[in-house]
Parts: sequence; structure tokens; C-alpha cells
Amino acid sequence: MIDLNSDLGEGFGIWPLTHDDALLDIVTSANVACGFHAGDPSVLRRVTTRAAERGIAVGAQVAYRDLAGFGRRFIDVDPAELVNDVIYQIAALDGFARVAGTRVSYVKPHGALYNAIVHHAEQAAAVVEAVRSYDASLPVLGLPGSEWLRQAENAGLRTVREAFADRAYTPEGTLVSRRRPGAVVHDAEEVVRRVVRMATEGTVTAIDGSVVEVEPDSVCVHGDTPGAVEIARGVRDALVREGVELRPFTSTTAGA
Amino acid sequence: MIDLNSDLGEGFGIWPLTHDDALLDIVTSANVACGFHAGDPSVLRRVTTRAAERGIAVGAQVAYRDLAGFGRRFIDVDPAELVNDVIYQIAALDGFARVAGTRVSYVKPHGALYNAIVHHAEQAAAVVEAVRSYDASLPVLGLPGSEWLRQAENAGLRTVREAFADRAYTPEGTLVSRRRPGAVVHDAEEVVRRVVRMATEGTVTAIDGSVVEVEPDSVCVHGDTPGAVEIARGVRDALVREGVELRPFTSTTAGA
Amino acid sequence: MIDLNSDLGEGFGIWPLTHDDALLDIVTSANVACGFHAGDPSVLRRVTTRAAERGIAVGAQVAYRDLAGFGRRFIDVDPAELVNDVIYQIAALDGFARVAGTRVSYVKPHGALYNAIVHHAEQAAAVVEAVRSYDASLPVLGLPGSEWLRQAENAGLRTVREAFADRAYTPEGTLVSRRRPGAVVHDAEEVVRRVVRMATEGTVTAIDGSVVEVEPDSVCVHGDTPGAVEIARGVRDALVREGVELRPFTSTTAGA
Amino acid sequence: MIDLNSDLGEGFGIWPLTHDDALLDIVTSANVACGFHAGDPSVLRRVTTRAAERGIAVGAQVAYRDLAGFGRRFIDVDPAELVNDVIYQIAALDGFARVAGTRVSYVKPHGALYNAIVHHAEQAAAVVEAVRSYDASLPVLGLPGSEWLRQAENAGLRTVREAFADRAYTPEGTLVSRRRPGAVVHDAEEVVRRVVRMATEGTVTAIDGSVVEVEPDSVCVHGDTPGAVEIARGVRDALVREGVELRPFTSTTAGA
Repeated sequence: MIDLNSDLGEGFGIWPLTHDDALLDIVTSANVACGFHAGDPSVLRRVTTRAAERGIAVGAQVAYRDLAGFGRRFIDVDPAELVNDVIYQIAALDGFARVAGTRVSYVKPHGALYNAIVHHAEQAAAVVEAVRSYDASLPVLGLPGSEWLRQAENAGLRTVREAFADRAYTPEGTLVSRRRPGAVVHDAEEVVRRVVRMATEGTVTAIDGSVVEVEPDSVCVHGDTPGAVEIARGVRDALVREGVELRPFTSTTAGA
Repeated sequence: MIDLNSDLGEGFGIWPLTHDDALLDIVTSANVACGFHAGDPSVLRRVTTRAAERGIAVGAQVAYRDLAGFGRRFIDVDPAELVNDVIYQIAALDGFARVAGTRVSYVKPHGALYNAIVHHAEQAAAVVEAVRSYDASLPVLGLPGSEWLRQAENAGLRTVREAFADRAYTPEGTLVSRRRPGAVVHDAEEVVRRVVRMATEGTVTAIDGSVVEVEPDSVCVHGDTPGAVEIARGVRDALVREGVELRPFTSTTAGA
Repeated sequence: MIDLNSDLGEGFGIWPLTHDDALLDIVTSANVACGFHAGDPSVLRRVTTRAAERGIAVGAQVAYRDLAGFGRRFIDVDPAELVNDVIYQIAALDGFARVAGTRVSYVKPHGALYNAIVHHAEQAAAVVEAVRSYDASLPVLGLPGSEWLRQAENAGLRTVREAFADRAYTPEGTLVSRRRPGAVVHDAEEVVRRVVRMATEGTVTAIDGSVVEVEPDSVCVHGDTPGAVEIARGVRDALVREGVELRPFTSTTAGA
Repeated sequence: MIDLNSDLGEGFGIWPLTHDDALLDIVTSANVACGFHAGDPSVLRRVTTRAAERGIAVGAQVAYRDLAGFGRRFIDVDPAELVNDVIYQIAALDGFARVAGTRVSYVKPHGALYNAIVHHAEQAAAVVEAVRSYDASLPVLGLPGSEWLRQAENAGLRTVREAFADRAYTPEGTLVSRRRPGAVVHDAEEVVRRVVRMATEGTVTAIDGSVVEVEPDSVCVHGDTPGAVEIARGVRDALVREGVELRPFTSTTAGA
């Protein structure tokens, strides 16, 4: 059993980005942008409504306030303000989820914030504090071994281990930096094979050939290009063929 | 019995504007900016938290998306997008209200949106639709006789009649345009006398000397200058002296 | 002899929009977004640099401050502020033009501002005032018969008559509203025929079959879809075949 | 002879901040916000116009794109994009300066960018590159010993040494961090004495009592509170009494 998640709703105004409709036929969890790095209210409405119709879990993809940088630039925000920035985003998205008859059911940080809180203790604590304040029953998605998941667990939040379909891993189980060659796996069949192995064996081959345990609860696929959508569809089909059940991690209980 | 409301939380980032703390000792309902015309997440958090501590009703002061114009410029937004812009704002503020142990308990449009939907049927319908979609039990504040209140009533929303402490009225009961001389009453004692009469007799003397029935459920006082805060305090003190009970209109039932 | 212009540089951050590079091989004048409705500084830099390399005229495509609405929503801006908004945009783009060894050589309003100043005298006056203040030698592009061109001419600015390759015309020579059926001509060959006729005879067949004199100095082609780029290329090729010389209207003098 | 500079034009929309008019009667150089951390086009227009009328030098106070954070948060911007962000800001302000009959005559980074490029070589290089590309004759203001001034000098830009009227210094001549006690000198008379000594002897007493050579070409005074304006006026009056000539550093040549 595995969950497939993808970043959705990342257009803004006239500008589309992610192939939301196509992805909503593939994934089981939708990380929906909340308006700070992408996503205007009408995008949020459309994606949460369609996700709700399909029984797909709606997650808040919270980010730094940075439309011009798409949330991909580290910002040294005061942690006390970051708490409030994150609450604002979760709550705004949750409004559309309620209107669509569902709820925001998890939180996944985006871009530079995701990367920062792998190590940045104060910002990690701020995001944990935001989730706890808003709804302490919300699971949080992140990289195994990150400061973010460690603090979330200590705070009593349910943590969800995430792996990436198309990213190379170091022998330590972290992601190879995008600045290094080989950081992204472009071969479609290779991506499919990796995800199947993650889902069935819980392992991935690191960039040096060693085997790393990742044991993901959820695997992230991308959908920002037509090619990426095709790969995501291939991943889904292969998992189904292998008899892996696809469903939102939110449909299982913490202890399951 | 009367409610006093004021626009609060209208700072942004480093820039303060409204004298939030002083006003929170005076009013019974706080129209809190939601981030579109003013109000960053940390401002929203602070104002909703303090309002909750004092038992002051928290209302969503929804606006056009226009920080540079402070929501004071008409924008010809597509009504379908306006619905979503308004839901986003109510929901974001409601998140902070929940964190503070309360809820957004009414909606009041701001600035140019407030003025537009006195007449603009499509935009009025959009704001009504937003409130109904988000929470059909939320009362809405507005000008008696406006398209906005008429449509809200038809849609089954509870409508709350608002009067303005320091604005001159036409014989028809609408506000004298700010572009006309005499549009704003600056004399503190005169403002106090007007509000007492609104609260006790339900009437106001129009700019031509005629008497107009306004029968407000709530009176709006301003707090964006030290002088305005003094006037608001004078209004409150006079009402108390006259034996008028001050409490949020939200504490009464629709039929009361 | 005719000029072909197109709206370019209308991406923002991660979001591309217009097919800038393809269009820069087709048009003779580039209406470059200045950051208010689209266009971040790096987009402005890239487009102005490439335009300068190819000898294409760089025009400032000035707009309302409205990224979320792509400048397509009328905003009731105070004319005194609109003057400054427009100066800011022209000057910012002119900076990149200077860095690229050229200059902003004309001004074309965008979207809702373009449409508003066909009739809105105060906003038209504001844009005229902005151009005059910044550089009274800059020609301005607009719809023949518009308040904008009329006021610009009265103010001593050089005015440039624009026609649209793919828009239907009323018998009066104005554009058929996009809300009406038939407002846009989608057939590629038809578009090409219309432009050739505009360039060679100065006329276009209106939606009721009558013949309208448009006598354009410049024809606007679109480039926001791959199909639009193909049509623009077809227009260029046909004009060349017909012996019409393509060159920026800025290369000719006012009296020519 | 000394120059007094101050950060001006740091309001936005409805929100004022700096006491621009009062400061323009005190300083000789105005660091005008350019719209990225503060300053809308109408603010820029007003401040540059009044500065020009008084013969005060107009400098571009360039910043990270961060209205919500007032440019006080480090942002890990791609240096290639930072180059363009800075050009955009200088050029926009220069437009208003030209309209007012003057020119932007120097560049001073603001807030977190100012602090970052004391050490951050890539971002320092980006700002240097921006100034050189836009106008290599523009002097740049900064902290003596900073990476920023070092690189600017290597690139052939004229560098201007700045000291701060009310900030404590380390024995090494850098500023004591605002997070440390004693970082800001609040006593008005003490501030005045320090500036007089900076201007006449070129030295300042560091926080440990040692004497540090700062030899400023320009001293920065603040104007964001009524008290700050009073101190700035006191500084000016004392300098005049001491016979120190106040004039823009831009009025002197590089070799003077």
C-alpha cells in the first residue's frame, strides 16, 4: 500500500503551471499551493473541489511569501512570523476544502522552506508550532531524518515519510543536491522501477550504488510538464500491476 | 442596546495604521483586515487573539486585492473570482480566530467593495455567494437599502444594519459622498450626540436638516488617528451614561 | 511599409507566457511588459537585450498594478497616481533598454488600461501626462479615434495608429467586444489576408460586411500560444511576399 | 566637510513611515526607497521632486523584493536575478529624478541586503554588476571594510565610506549587532557628540572604549520617528556650529 502525492495548484492568475486535471487522475494526495509561492484563490477552489470529488486527500503546501521566487529562495523570516504565515496558508486552503465538503488533511512545506527545515531548527519549530496551533491532528509530510519530522514527532504530530520518484539519493538517504550532476532521474522506465521498489521493498539505490532504506508512506511525483505527467501515469500503472494498493496515507490511522 | 464596530488590523509589515489596542478597549465588534487591502498574518493573529481575550466579536473585513490602493479603488473583478477572493479572506482570518478559541462571526466588506455593492448587483451577488458557501450562518454588515443587504436577505443570510458615527447622511439615508463638503462630521461632541440619538431613537439628522430613520444594529467608529480614538471613547462613554447597553450584535439572535 | 508589434515579456517568475524568442524573429516592435501586470526584472532584461540585438524597437507596455488580474481588470486609480505608476514602468524598462544599448522608443498601454482610455478622459490624460513628463519625444500606440490618441495628439505627442490582426471590427472602426461571438478571427489564412489588406489598402472588412478604413501604422499580432506564433509567422511571410516592407514605425519620422 | 544621508520615501500606499519633509530640511543626501521594500511610485515622485528642489542628492536605496518584510530579511536570491532586480530599482527611481530635473547620483543598499553584502561575495558582486551596467559613474555607499565596497572599488566604482550616527561600533569598526545590548545609542546629546567627532576627527569610541578610525564621507541619520527627526536636527545644528560644511558627497569629485 502506498500514497502518491504531487504538487498541484501552482498556477497564478493567467499563468498555469501544473497539469492539475491530469494529475488528479493519478495521485492519491494533492499538495495544494496556498497563495504564498503560487496559487490564487480561484486555483485553490478548483483544485480542492476536484480533489474532493475524486476522494483525493487535500494537503496544504505551505511556503515562504515569495511569488517572484516561487518559494524557492531561502528567506530568513522571523520564526514568530513564520508561525503566522503558515497558519494563514493552511486556514485559507482549509476554507476551500470545507466549501468542497472535505478538509485539509495534511501539511507539506514547499521548496526552500522544505529544504531549510531539514536543518534549520527555529524555522522547523515554527512550522511545527503552526500545525499544532491550527489542528494538532494534521499529519505532516517530510524527509526521513529531517529536523522537521523529528520536531514534529516530539510535538506529538503524526509524521509521514516521503520519498521522491525522480531524485537521486546519497548513501545517507538525503537527496543529491540539484546542483550536482545526476540529481534528477530523467529516464521514465528507471523512475517507474525505483518507485515500485520503494513501495514493495522500501529501498532505493543511492547514487554510489549502495542500497538505502527509505520506507516511504508517500512518494512524490511531478506534474509540471507533459513528460512528467506521462511518467507519473507510468508509475501509477506499474504500482497497480504489481498489486500495490494506492490510497491516501490519510485514510490509514497513525498506528496502522 | 447597540454594537460599536471599528476597522482594525489595518497595518502591514513594518507599517502600523489603526490604533488596535486602544480600540479594543472601546468597541464590541472588530472588523479585522484579512490581508488583501491590509493586514499581514502576524497582525491578524495579534488582533484576533486580543479580541478573543476581551470577548469582542471578530468580523472578516473582506476587500479587493489591492495593497497599494488600500482597497479603496473599484476593481472590475470577475464575480466568479471575487467569490473565491472573499472565501479565501474569511477562511484565513477564521484560522486565527479558531487558534484564539473563537470564530469569525460576521462579514463586513471594506472600502471600494463596500461602496460598489451598494449598487453593483453582480459583485454583491458574489460576496453573498462567498458567505453562503463558507458559512451560511454568518451575519453580514452593510448599509440599509443596499443591493448587498437586499441580496443577502434574499439568500437567507442574517443582515445587520450599520450606521456611521461621523458621516453625514442624505435625506434618502445614504452617505454624503466624501467628495462633497460636510461629508464627515469632525466635531467630537456632535459625533457623540449623533450616535446617542441613533442608538436611542434610531434617527439621524440629514445634511438638509430632515430626520432620517437609520435604526442601526451597529455603529461604526474610526480609529486610524489619535483624535479618532478619543472620539470613539467619547461615544462609548456617552452611550454608557445614557444607559445604552453595549454588546456585539452577534450575541443576539437573528429574531431578537 | 508596415510595423508588426506584439506583447512580449509577459511571464513572471517561474511562469512563462509569451513565446518571446519566436516572436522576436517575426515582429519589428516589442511591447515589453514592465512588471505591473507581468514581467519580472529578469524577463525585462532578457527581452530588451534580445530585441536590441535584432534591431527591434522596444516599447513600454504599461498597465494597472495587478499581477493577479494580468492587468485585465479596470481599476479606478486616482489619475494623479496613475501618472506616477506609468512613469515608474516606463523608466524601469528604459533602464534595461539603456543597458542593452538602446532606449524605450514608444509606449503602448495594456489590457484594461488600453480599453479604459478609449473613453476614460481622466485616465487618458494621466497616461499622456506620464509620457510627456518622462520623454515628450516618445510616440504612443493606440486605437484610432480613441480619447487616448486624441489627447496625446493635442499634447504634441506623436501618435501611431494600431490595427489588430485577429480582431473583428465594427462598422465604426472599433473592436467587437470579446464577449460577442465572432470577436476573434481564428482562421489563420483569413488573418493573413486581413493583415495584407490592412497594410496594402488600409482597410478591413467589418463584422457586418462593410469596409472600414483603418490605415494602420502598426499591426498587432499575438504570441501567447504556439498556434498564435504560427499565424504571426504566416502574416510576416505574406507581407514580405506582397512586397510590403517591414520595419519599426519608430524608424520613420513623425511627418513621413 | 561632511554629508548627512537618511533613508526616505519608505511609506507605501496609505502607510507613511519616514518623516520625509522634515528630513529634507536636514540632510544633504536622500536614500530613496525604490518600491521593492517600500515606496510606491507616488512616494518616489514626491520625495525626488522635493529633494531636487532643495538641491539634495537623490540616491537609489535598493533592496530585496520584500514589502512584507521591509527588506529586512535575508533572501537567498540567485545573483543573476539580483543584478536585474537592482537595475530595475535604480532605473525606476532615476525616471522620477529625471522628471524632477536631476538624476540618481548614488546607490545605497538597504536593510538585509546592506548587511548581507558586507560578507556575501556573490550578492555583493551582483549589486556591483548592476551599478556598473546601469551607470558606472554612480558612487556607491557602504560600510568601510565590506566585501561590497572592496568589490566596487576593484570594479572601478567610486566608493563612499558611511558611518552611523546612532549605532555602536565594535573595536574592528563593524556595527554591533542589533541583537546585542547597547547596539543603538539613544541619548540625543551623545549621538550629536559622536557625529561631530566623526566629522572633525574621523573617529568613534567603540563599545569597549577603544578608539576606531571611521573617516566617513557620509553619516547616516534616521527619520522614522519624531524623536529621530529631533536628533537629526540636533546633529545638523551641531555640525554647523562646529564649522563643518554640510554638502552632498556627490558634489565633490572622486579624487577630492
